[in-house]
Amino acid sequence: MTRKSVGVAVIGAGMAGRAHAAGYRSAGTVFDADGPEARLVSVVDTNEALAQDARQRYGFARAESDWRAIVAADDVDAVSVVVANHLHREIIEALLAAGKHVLCEKPLAPSLADARAMAAAADDATTVAAVGYTYRRSPAMSAIRDHVHNGHLGRPIHFNGHAWYDYALDPLTPMSWRYKGGPGTGALADVGSHMVDTAEYVCGPVVEVSGAVLTTVIDERPVPAGVTLGHERGELTGEVEPVENEDLATFTARFENGAVGTFSVSRVAHGLPNGLAFEVFGSAGSAAFDLQRAGEFQVTDSSPRGEVNGQRRVYVGPAHPYLRRGVPMDAPGVGYGTGDLFVYQARAFLDQIVGLDHLPPCPSFHDAVRGLEVLDAVVESARGGGVAVKIA
Amino acid sequence: MTRKSVGVAVIGAGMAGRAHAAGYRSAGTVFDADGPEARLVSVVDTNEALAQDARQRYGFARAESDWRAIVAADDVDAVSVVVANHLHREIIEALLAAGKHVLCEKPLAPSLADARAMAAAADDATTVAAVGYTYRRSPAMSAIRDHVHNGHLGRPIHFNGHAWYDYALDPLTPMSWRYKGGPGTGALADVGSHMVDTAEYVCGPVVEVSGAVLTTVIDERPVPAGVTLGHERGELTGEVEPVENEDLATFTARFENGAVGTFSVSRVAHGLPNGLAFEVFGSAGSAAFDLQRAGEFQVTDSSPRGEVNGQRRVYVGPAHPYLRRGVPMDAPGVGYGTGDLFVYQARAFLDQIVGLDHLPPCPSFHDAVRGLEVLDAVVESARGGGVAVKIA
Amino acid sequence: MTRKSVGVAVIGAGMAGRAHAAGYRSAGTVFDADGPEARLVSVVDTNEALAQDARQRYGFARAESDWRAIVAADDVDAVSVVVANHLHREIIEALLAAGKHVLCEKPLAPSLADARAMAAAADDATTVAAVGYTYRRSPAMSAIRDHVHNGHLGRPIHFNGHAWYDYALDPLTPMSWRYKGGPGTGALADVGSHMVDTAEYVCGPVVEVSGAVLTTVIDERPVPAGVTLGHERGELTGEVEPVENEDLATFTARFENGAVGTFSVSRVAHGLPNGLAFEVFGSAGSAAFDLQRAGEFQVTDSSPRGEVNGQRRVYVGPAHPYLRRGVPMDAPGVGYGTGDLFVYQARAFLDQIVGLDHLPPCPSFHDAVRGLEVLDAVVESARGGGVAVKIA
Amino acid sequence: MTRKSVGVAVIGAGMAGRAHAAGYRSAGTVFDADGPEARLVSVVDTNEALAQDARQRYGFARAESDWRAIVAADDVDAVSVVVANHLHREIIEALLAAGKHVLCEKPLAPSLADARAMAAAADDATTVAAVGYTYRRSPAMSAIRDHVHNGHLGRPIHFNGHAWYDYALDPLTPMSWRYKGGPGTGALADVGSHMVDTAEYVCGPVVEVSGAVLTTVIDERPVPAGVTLGHERGELTGEVEPVENEDLATFTARFENGAVGTFSVSRVAHGLPNGLAFEVFGSAGSAAFDLQRAGEFQVTDSSPRGEVNGQRRVYVGPAHPYLRRGVPMDAPGVGYGTGDLFVYQARAFLDQIVGLDHLPPCPSFHDAVRGLEVLDAVVESARGGGVAVKIA
Repeated sequence: MTRKSVGVAVIGAGMAGRAHAAGYRSAGTVFDADGPEARLVSVVDTNEALAQDARQRYGFARAESDWRAIVAADDVDAVSVVVANHLHREIIEALLAAGKHVLCEKPLAPSLADARAMAAAADDATTVAAVGYTYRRSPAMSAIRDHVHNGHLGRPIHFNGHAWYDYALDPLTPMSWRYKGGPGTGALADVGSHMVDTAEYVCGPVVEVSGAVLTTVIDERPVPAGVTLGHERGELTGEVEPVENEDLATFTARFENGAVGTFSVSRVAHGLPNGLAFEVFGSAGSAAFDLQRAGEFQVTDSSPRGEVNGQRRVYVGPAHPYLRRGVPMDAPGVGYGTGDLFVYQARAFLDQIVGLDHLPPCPSFHDAVRGLEVLDAVVESARGGGVAVKIA
Repeated sequence: MTRKSVGVAVIGAGMAGRAHAAGYRSAGTVFDADGPEARLVSVVDTNEALAQDARQRYGFARAESDWRAIVAADDVDAVSVVVANHLHREIIEALLAAGKHVLCEKPLAPSLADARAMAAAADDATTVAAVGYTYRRSPAMSAIRDHVHNGHLGRPIHFNGHAWYDYALDPLTPMSWRYKGGPGTGALADVGSHMVDTAEYVCGPVVEVSGAVLTTVIDERPVPAGVTLGHERGELTGEVEPVENEDLATFTARFENGAVGTFSVSRVAHGLPNGLAFEVFGSAGSAAFDLQRAGEFQVTDSSPRGEVNGQRRVYVGPAHPYLRRGVPMDAPGVGYGTGDLFVYQARAFLDQIVGLDHLPPCPSFHDAVRGLEVLDAVVESARGGGVAVKIA
Repeated sequence: MTRKSVGVAVIGAGMAGRAHAAGYRSAGTVFDADGPEARLVSVVDTNEALAQDARQRYGFARAESDWRAIVAADDVDAVSVVVANHLHREIIEALLAAGKHVLCEKPLAPSLADARAMAAAADDATTVAAVGYTYRRSPAMSAIRDHVHNGHLGRPIHFNGHAWYDYALDPLTPMSWRYKGGPGTGALADVGSHMVDTAEYVCGPVVEVSGAVLTTVIDERPVPAGVTLGHERGELTGEVEPVENEDLATFTARFENGAVGTFSVSRVAHGLPNGLAFEVFGSAGSAAFDLQRAGEFQVTDSSPRGEVNGQRRVYVGPAHPYLRRGVPMDAPGVGYGTGDLFVYQARAFLDQIVGLDHLPPCPSFHDAVRGLEVLDAVVESARGGGVAVKIA
Repeated sequence: MTRKSVGVAVIGAGMAGRAHAAGYRSAGTVFDADGPEARLVSVVDTNEALAQDARQRYGFARAESDWRAIVAADDVDAVSVVVANHLHREIIEALLAAGKHVLCEKPLAPSLADARAMAAAADDATTVAAVGYTYRRSPAMSAIRDHVHNGHLGRPIHFNGHAWYDYALDPLTPMSWRYKGGPGTGALADVGSHMVDTAEYVCGPVVEVSGAVLTTVIDERPVPAGVTLGHERGELTGEVEPVENEDLATFTARFENGAVGTFSVSRVAHGLPNGLAFEVFGSAGSAAFDLQRAGEFQVTDSSPRGEVNGQRRVYVGPAHPYLRRGVPMDAPGVGYGTGDLFVYQARAFLDQIVGLDHLPPCPSFHDAVRGLEVLDAVVESARGGGVAVKIA
């Protein structure tokens, strides 16, 4: 029995690109032993030192500085694109045209127009075009999703979600592409995209948003002297530039299934480094998730008698999605980190490429367009002073 | 040294009326020893057995069945009105006209028009007219409020509140006045009023709401065979009647101080008997409160170095509002129940009556009108499909 | 229908004495409306100002400075004794000899010999002799106890308890009677007595202890210039005196029912003002309690399927002991403070006096002797270097 | 720049063996990019299918069924031994004699005599002999350890630890080697060894234990029809065999630094799949850890003013051990699973082999002997009815 081998490249060697690289490296170790595995071909970054470091760490054959080399590379079948999102479209379209399978980090594009063009390109392609909404791979979140979809919570009534991060709270965190681009390109695009994808993953399509408010809390930021990786302070030039997009976005929503939603997404939430969380209420139960305690979820239903009933803390384990077979540490309560989610995602992408459907597929470009339509509707609602905006 | 004695009556002997009665009984035991104390004169309920039971329990001199007797009673100085809110106006106006101090349970009235009329009556009166937003008396919530007002969280950015209760989740919970009256008179009036008052207490005036969605989840309820106290199932007639108001309301908001708000209030939140909670984020810190763990609050700021910094669980104690002096069990971590809040409220009301200002005063009728204006704006926003509505 | 009235006095007007006074004041308001109520006759303290303050607050008829006046008082039927425990025996014996019902604050006496003498005196008396283990009145703890006794956890296997307090952690907390008296009279007597009583209440008699270690962490303390109430720093003389008893005690135990126990009790536990907590494991389930979150308890059993099973947070409410009838705020999740426990205790004591048995009775002097025998065995085990010591 | 490559084998392809295999596979991806990496040579299991599955998953060159092949293999430099612990000695001694570096899964051996012989063999060898106490690699636990060692908690006073697992609670969990071998070979050897290693890692050497109680709760277990992996029920023969060792062990302890310890370790703790946790109290602060929420730890100290001070929940991140450089997802709050700990462990072992000391070294065989001496002392204390037993 021989495993299928898929030649992979990762474009972008920053923190998230490394998470993709690590995901590919371990993708063949989990789930069915005879599934596909990744052949680590190339890692690309305009910063050559970064690319070399990643090549050496993860065991890629090559490090390169120009993504066009990947388009032309015969030994690359599949590519993760993990660069600033305004660069996605050109790269993805070239890769698809060259017959590559693509896994594009979220958000798909800075504008809905770009995203729709990319989805059209994906429709024209015969390869897999997937989007990296990694949190969908959380075993706990997926357990809640299954629970909702199986009807165990009854009729969905209310989804309350927040994505509270603090990475932009320090006024000395330097200016970067994250703070440019106009309404909708800030917290909404960065963490709101995760929030909306999570909501739709768990509770189905959002069909209307209203009451949107976008707020910029820190109006200007210092210009950095050089390139910065991640969110840390670096050397500064002494100049400042205006922040062009929102630090905080809030809105309400309606889901296709009749549930209503309340949302807040922030990059200035003091004390919360990674606070994506939600509660979902149905007529027969409720569930809750917090990414900061991703090895567990909370659930209520009516099964024990009231005297000893209450919100249950469930540790994910072999009874839950992703952990049923083939994950080395599959006992409940051992915990799962964000790194694990990238492994499951990489494997699902490889599985799709070779035609296996054991795992939930990655969200498609059309799914991502849908999510962007919701974010766009949020911006439109905010522009209209909170007016309700339907998603087509 | 003689304590001032205030003759009190309580109109309404249900669960909340009893909490008022118990509050008066203990009001003189806490805080300054030379402050006012209550003389328990009369408890009133149209259900005479209930009134007699409450009289006997709390030690009132009389039990009566007609509130008009209180209007006429020379030995009554101050009155709690704890009946269905559509009855408030007539009773309160009569009491004020008779020169009584009044503490009206929230919400002040079923309509803004009624509430404004009551506020006008209060303006014409020389007595104290207060509203029973008891949660303001929570030592933990008050600690957060002081923290916000003293600027320790920096500039307020975001207030996220929910009032999630489950009392109406059972479709067999019988029809009552709670389920009648049109949009805004359901969860919004009942638990949303607490939520809005809490938000304004902690974060200041709300000046705009938008994105409101009101939802009725359980469309009809069985007609009970007799009177029901509280929310329990009782005997049913076999008939059903339509529910006229919302089980769930969601909206966003803007505060005068520039913060934005996200809100959801529900009476159908599975598994949460008493889930009023909020988080407030500022530029220099954050705080969180959950009524179900009312003996503590959570706070973050930047004071310890990051390596050991994080969300702190603070047990309220003598360092915090209400517990500084004169509460028998004032050690941190001993816990405070809802009953304690009624004691602090009763004492604050008595203090106001005799002219003391050691405690934060009770909210006025105008404060309550403000809160109702916010709730009214929520209904108007919902009617307009989520449109933004300013509060005058 | 007339309620029986019991004339009560409280000897000791410090923090705990006031909690007793407040308990009597509200005792008639809860549970059955036709039960006994307290007539507040006298409060006693050698500090006359304290006694006057308490008299005025709680509405006692008299304040006195000599407890002997209570022994002689015809209008006093029942007496709480809430003074330093080396004073208990003389006062209690005199009260019993005079035909008074007594509720003695824990621990019953500083020595087992004294306690046994007091129990003998109680045997000779025809009145009620009860001990103030107030935590037994916690609705949540009582719910666990019922759960264990009804067999819902299966066969008890392990009881793990800690009583972690921080009141003595500050080396400048001044010398007082708390720090005098030799091994066993420190943390063991003060908070260990609560811990052992809790363990026996929930899990039945302890029949052996072993492995005891008693540790004094802060060897000497400053001598205060005057009297101190509670644990706060006051003015100091500049001198120090040696601490004579343990700050921390640890031991293991065996219960009559076959379960084993692990215990630690401390008055120097940083950051924990009121940390009495336990977990109890049985063959079919487990439960956990933390006094700092006394409105809830945790429970596991096998009733929902594993996929959604886990530790449940149960808010105490009308389904649980003490809250079934007659407590004004009986909804789950409203919280219960330590003050409430004193009310339930006072009522149970009054009920016993008039011959009612609706509530679990207060622990007897013999129960307290049993608890002291366990504590004595802990001291003996520590003296023997951890040797096992059986409780007779 | 070329990375050093270490040829590795893993003996034992069960759940823990796979965790070692996955650890080696990713060891080169984390921390310094120029450190050593593993060359995956061989995986060994008497169950050939298991070995083949592991070979294929993790990318080893060979799968073998006899560990002696590894002793003889020239291309293997380092070996993880992850088999039943009564097999450790023979394998380890042969590997050391053949000049292999060894990483032996804990506990080192079923008897102290065996362990001491192995430590002697390690002394005679020139290679690295390490023991797999993986939990030492928890970033959160290590952060607490650093905190204690740096004196930030002041003088250590009390370490309270529990290792509560539920894997043996089901009476139908079949008989296996886990339930054979006499006192000390059950929960004490399996999870107690982790507990003691954790305690000594954080708080230093244990010098005395006392009060030990060993309990067997489930006296006999069904004989399985075939081999079982892990703890699951399988087919049964219908026969039962007696359980020879303890399900639960409890004891107290003294540490060299003067702190006292309380411990309970269980494999029958209902509802806790992976409950290793501890609290450590010092004169200036406290900290707490729970493996089930391994991405965070709790800490108290006196740095903010009391009004807003309390137990802080700290999410581990780049400020903490192991996450400072080179872990792809190094933001606080992203979570770390047990799988990550095996990666850090594998890397530390490889680093030691090539002479790097960037990471805390793995515990040595002598460290493990020390831990076993403590466990042996626990057994001796239990045999002596709880008597105190010093560790040499």
